[in-house]
Amino acid sequence: MTGGKAESIVTAAFLVIGDEILSGRTKDKNIGFVADYMTSLGIDLKEVRVVADIKEDIVEAVNALRQRYDYVFTSGGIGPTHDDITAESVAAAFKVPLNLDPRAVAILESHYARGQFTDARKRMARIPEGADLIENKVSKAPGFRIGNVHVMAGVPSIMQAMMDAVAPTLKTGTRMLSETVSADMPESRIAERLAAIQDAHPNTLIGSYPKATDGKFTTQIVIRARDEAVLSAAAKDVSQAVTEISG
Amino acid sequence: MTGGKAESIVTAAFLVIGDEILSGRTKDKNIGFVADYMTSLGIDLKEVRVVADIKEDIVEAVNALRQRYDYVFTSGGIGPTHDDITAESVAAAFKVPLNLDPRAVAILESHYARGQFTDARKRMARIPEGADLIENKVSKAPGFRIGNVHVMAGVPSIMQAMMDAVAPTLKTGTRMLSETVSADMPESRIAERLAAIQDAHPNTLIGSYPKATDGKFTTQIVIRARDEAVLSAAAKDVSQAVTEISG
Repeated sequence: MTGGKAESIVTAAFLVIGDEILSGRTKDKNIGFVADYMTSLGIDLKEVRVVADIKEDIVEAVNALRQRYDYVFTSGGIGPTHDDITAESVAAAFKVPLNLDPRAVAILESHYARGQFTDARKRMARIPEGADLIENKVSKAPGFRIGNVHVMAGVPSIMQAMMDAVAPTLKTGTRMLSETVSADMPESRIAERLAAIQDAHPNTLIGSYPKATDGKFTTQIVIRARDEAVLSAAAKDVSQAVTEISG
Repeated sequence: MTGGKAESIVTAAFLVIGDEILSGRTKDKNIGFVADYMTSLGIDLKEVRVVADIKEDIVEAVNALRQRYDYVFTSGGIGPTHDDITAESVAAAFKVPLNLDPRAVAILESHYARGQFTDARKRMARIPEGADLIENKVSKAPGFRIGNVHVMAGVPSIMQAMMDAVAPTLKTGTRMLSETVSADMPESRIAERLAAIQDAHPNTLIGSYPKATDGKFTTQIVIRARDEAVLSAAAKDVSQAVTEISG
């Protein structure tokens, strides 16, 4: 910390719920989106988990994560079919009843034609007691927030719209800033210098990421800090080290 | 189970280690690969976690997952830089020392030119006591297996080569087979029928996956089972339901 301004840190975890990700059938697109979104908000995404559509697994993950982090976001399992068990699992995690929610019923009743708000669709109006709804501009069936847990859809376009609806309600921390220095060398050539620079700049996080392209290794060095002056001092040292080793 | 043949189930978890995934800087490519690979081997991937380059977080995740599943695979954090702390964290999880491993030293010494096997590169030869090495055909620095935990690189091409080296050593279960039925309707229209079909075919897993394309919703219904006859009986019922509802 420099400049006399206290840095505030807000943490989050993301829980992906769905057999289809674990079987490989669906390739997840939500983790990268949430990671970018949290970084841009100034919330530190600290952990991601993917679990199957199994009630006890969801309950355990929700309870572990909500105790550990400021916010939990979930995606998946809030549709109308028998394998959508996220709402009942989250209700079980919070030990509250799961009832038809009059607000959700009203939203869905006005969305479907008369007589088309079937029992299956009513599943999507079952909301844990005490939860707030999260608006779904894409397909109406709402998500919900209970405690610090935000339950969202798995379809990326709907999840993203729900995240936009949630964002204004979140407290955010001091944004993590970053600079990237590219080094045209394998990371082992610069490793010792980077370790020394990391030691000299304890309020930064210096990450080294090797990349293999056509059998040739290059390195991206990412310096992160919440304070701009701290960041640029460390980045300058990294750049200088890369230049010296290259030369 | 049918046909008198007992089904065997082997489970696994995948642990992704790295700040860069959580910050959004790097978009993970390994989860989908491991999910597909496990499914093709006949191993059930039951959980995925992503944690930061923080020792206590890695130790906790490794210990939770290795007790719960037959196998754990990790990716990331085994390079030569200061932020590569997976080996020391896994050693701590197993409460064993982390030493320079003569086998790993021999591999790396013969790989680098004389005098180029620097202290930084020696970090990559530190292996928890009692571990076996995992061959790295791409860039030589080995992964390792200790107990039921397989520690692999984060760079996708290297991770994939290591997985190929590990695969022949794994016990595998009865492969999960699957059939997919496409339904040109939102899933809420078929939800009640699917629930009844799931009840009638308890040895299958029927998943319903909505897809939004240009504001129109279609549904992919995936039926999974380890027995071919069981699978096709359930898939036939699903196809018939889709046809009836479409008609």
